[in-house]
Amino acid sequence: MNIDKIMKEKEHLLNKKIEINGWVRNHRPQKEFGFIDLSDGTNFKHLQVVYDKSVSDFDLVSNIHNGSSIKVMGILQKSEGKNQDIELKAMNIQILGDCSSDYPLQAKRHSMEFLRSIAYLRPRANLFQAVFKIRSLASMAIHEYFQKRGYIYLHAPLITASDCEGAGEMFQVTTLDLEKEKTIDYQKDFFGKKTGLTVSGQLQAETFAMAFSKVYTFGPTFRAENSNTKVHASEFWMIEPEIAFCDIDELMNIEEDFLKNIIQYVLEHGQEELQFLDKFTSPGLIEKLNNLLQSQFTKITHEEVITLLKKAPVKWEFTPSYGKDIAKEHEKYLTEYFKGPVFITNWPKDIKAFYMKLNDDGKTVAAVDLIVPEAGELMGGSQREEDYDKLLKRMQQLNMNIKELQWYLNLRKYGSVIHSGFGMGFERLLMYLTGIDNIRDVIAYPRTPGNCEF
Amino acid sequence: MNIDKIMKEKEHLLNKKIEINGWVRNHRPQKEFGFIDLSDGTNFKHLQVVYDKSVSDFDLVSNIHNGSSIKVMGILQKSEGKNQDIELKAMNIQILGDCSSDYPLQAKRHSMEFLRSIAYLRPRANLFQAVFKIRSLASMAIHEYFQKRGYIYLHAPLITASDCEGAGEMFQVTTLDLEKEKTIDYQKDFFGKKTGLTVSGQLQAETFAMAFSKVYTFGPTFRAENSNTKVHASEFWMIEPEIAFCDIDELMNIEEDFLKNIIQYVLEHGQEELQFLDKFTSPGLIEKLNNLLQSQFTKITHEEVITLLKKAPVKWEFTPSYGKDIAKEHEKYLTEYFKGPVFITNWPKDIKAFYMKLNDDGKTVAAVDLIVPEAGELMGGSQREEDYDKLLKRMQQLNMNIKELQWYLNLRKYGSVIHSGFGMGFERLLMYLTGIDNIRDVIAYPRTPGNCEF
Repeated sequence: MNIDKIMKEKEHLLNKKIEINGWVRNHRPQKEFGFIDLSDGTNFKHLQVVYDKSVSDFDLVSNIHNGSSIKVMGILQKSEGKNQDIELKAMNIQILGDCSSDYPLQAKRHSMEFLRSIAYLRPRANLFQAVFKIRSLASMAIHEYFQKRGYIYLHAPLITASDCEGAGEMFQVTTLDLEKEKTIDYQKDFFGKKTGLTVSGQLQAETFAMAFSKVYTFGPTFRAENSNTKVHASEFWMIEPEIAFCDIDELMNIEEDFLKNIIQYVLEHGQEELQFLDKFTSPGLIEKLNNLLQSQFTKITHEEVITLLKKAPVKWEFTPSYGKDIAKEHEKYLTEYFKGPVFITNWPKDIKAFYMKLNDDGKTVAAVDLIVPEAGELMGGSQREEDYDKLLKRMQQLNMNIKELQWYLNLRKYGSVIHSGFGMGFERLLMYLTGIDNIRDVIAYPRTPGNCEF
Repeated sequence: MNIDKIMKEKEHLLNKKIEINGWVRNHRPQKEFGFIDLSDGTNFKHLQVVYDKSVSDFDLVSNIHNGSSIKVMGILQKSEGKNQDIELKAMNIQILGDCSSDYPLQAKRHSMEFLRSIAYLRPRANLFQAVFKIRSLASMAIHEYFQKRGYIYLHAPLITASDCEGAGEMFQVTTLDLEKEKTIDYQKDFFGKKTGLTVSGQLQAETFAMAFSKVYTFGPTFRAENSNTKVHASEFWMIEPEIAFCDIDELMNIEEDFLKNIIQYVLEHGQEELQFLDKFTSPGLIEKLNNLLQSQFTKITHEEVITLLKKAPVKWEFTPSYGKDIAKEHEKYLTEYFKGPVFITNWPKDIKAFYMKLNDDGKTVAAVDLIVPEAGELMGGSQREEDYDKLLKRMQQLNMNIKELQWYLNLRKYGSVIHSGFGMGFERLLMYLTGIDNIRDVIAYPRTPGNCEF
């Protein structure tokens, strides 16, 4: 028996004898009786256990510490309490594992910083029960979405010799004995060359899209960027679908449909968790998510955006410019102006990646960023350059290593087709879904500059 | 429209006008007409396209190269051919992307070695269409299995400062400029200490099992082992469930149920793919999988196994020994002897990991390996040591870094419970499901010593 089963079948189980294991989240002993909030993590709700002097070994029971694991045998009964409609009237309570008095996770409010320092215990706290359950639910929602629609799940490689984005912020992977080696010879390294951790699985996803039409990756990616912000982690998960015979307009439809489906799934399967977050940490969360489901997604070009921002009756910190990226303050203005998510298309080519399709104007590329209310940029995608000569020319302009990426170029030589894809940082989505404002709190064991604990 | 939709709704679509995009897998032009095997990867089956002189631009069409991408407009009709019951009678065929004559993937038999050298094209070959579809299906089966049963999906960290198995075969991760640094100072490294790529997410999974009761990981793991065998890869995916309040007996039931469910799912959803593999590369594959579904799983101790092997009328290459691991030849004998999968339990503690529960005999641990016919070891699991003092003693005996793993030990101090888990290499499962005998051929872009291409 577990608490999830009890919550789902409570009518049927009422007045029945039940045996259950779990952890004591909060114990309130009184002189003649006591209450225990029991959790086993299978349901967000705790089960209230009540006991009185009729329980075997009352003295031992009334001294049970918070955090201990116990086995309870009792009768499920209706509860008079205002916080629950059922409770377990204990006949017998057995301590499975005591909890030492130095237990750091006492039943009180802790700071997020402190909870990060005990990341191995924080999943026991309500807030993280909610966050990591939603993380699990959202993962499943993503797999279901793509698999139901015939996408193939690709595990893109993580150790790689090529730097997809050309950003140069890669972790290096080696088996050389650095303390002993006098000179570094990559021919002697494990793979016989210099290798690092991937920043994107997109290029490999494109190879699979040319075979299966619809594919997606969902795996870890890495960024060795020395930024200590609330939204950057060195290790995070990305979702990167890639679709053949799909142009940028169709891509935007897919992005919208995808996002709405994920939100719908989490609203349906994570009700308790969202209600908790809405109540205690992120007021308005559920309304925000429901609003997004009802939203019209605006489509607008980067040029139109800049014109709009320039006209806006706002004193910008960052002056909008036709050749440049837009700032957080601009994103905020735009989602408020359009009262919903905004697709910004046709970006200046010089601020976007080499593989994006050059538009007929020769100046912009068929890139699209999706910005959403309160969270800013959530997805970045593009139609890919499917013309061999144009792609080669762009790579030459950027002084890229053509030889290293000849296989990627070849996709444009062997049955090239129009194709598009987008990338979404999974943790960005989770921050949006939970209202949690620090990426460190939606990752079980976050890795950031200077931090690699547990 | 895509081929999957056509195959599934062919009755309804018969005699209707259809437009479809895809790649030419095989083109057989005749003088007055021609046949094209069209694939778009959405269904294992190809769509036969027939055209005659009535098609617009017959001369151009009859010169279409294998590998090209085309758009076909035509009428779906019944086919007289013996290989298909429907075909598309083309009215118009448009070349989207030509395929250069140096296309390496011509319609003939290629060696597996050659196909590995063009790994970016091989997903277009039938064999790899089957393999990577099954990889995708099996991934989904695994997620569905756990999520339906209330397990939480944990993304365990990949960059880590601790070596779970103590095997010492870790890739190092660094941002130090190795060519410039004179002396290596890990305090100046990205995380301020020496870090590497994880070999297992189990220890972190245990922390989550103490909060959610049932969790699973499904993510990449790494082994910097210099072995060039058919079954070793440097980067592979692992599934590691961890279950609280679960002993080794219950664990074996879960393993059996899990494996049978995954196989059932793939048999149901990957029929075409399995039939192809059964016919062309792995005769008897489907029978093997069906047999496993019907199998009784035997449970036997390591000691009993050794006794049995010693008595067996076989001249062993490796002599069975009570204190040692068993060899491939032993595994084969056992699965044949018991006519099915075998759980081997209670292994000598000295050949198993530190975290396994010490049995009362003080000599063996509550470990269990599952071996299956034809494939050998598929899963390895154990009940974990839940006693703080016993675990500490074992770690001290093995000269482990206690300080580094104090958090792991603490799980035994703060509400410790009996718990168990197992690990399964995803690629081992795929080799079993597909009959493919080289791990390099079930991974999109395999990484092995000296090989890190694409």
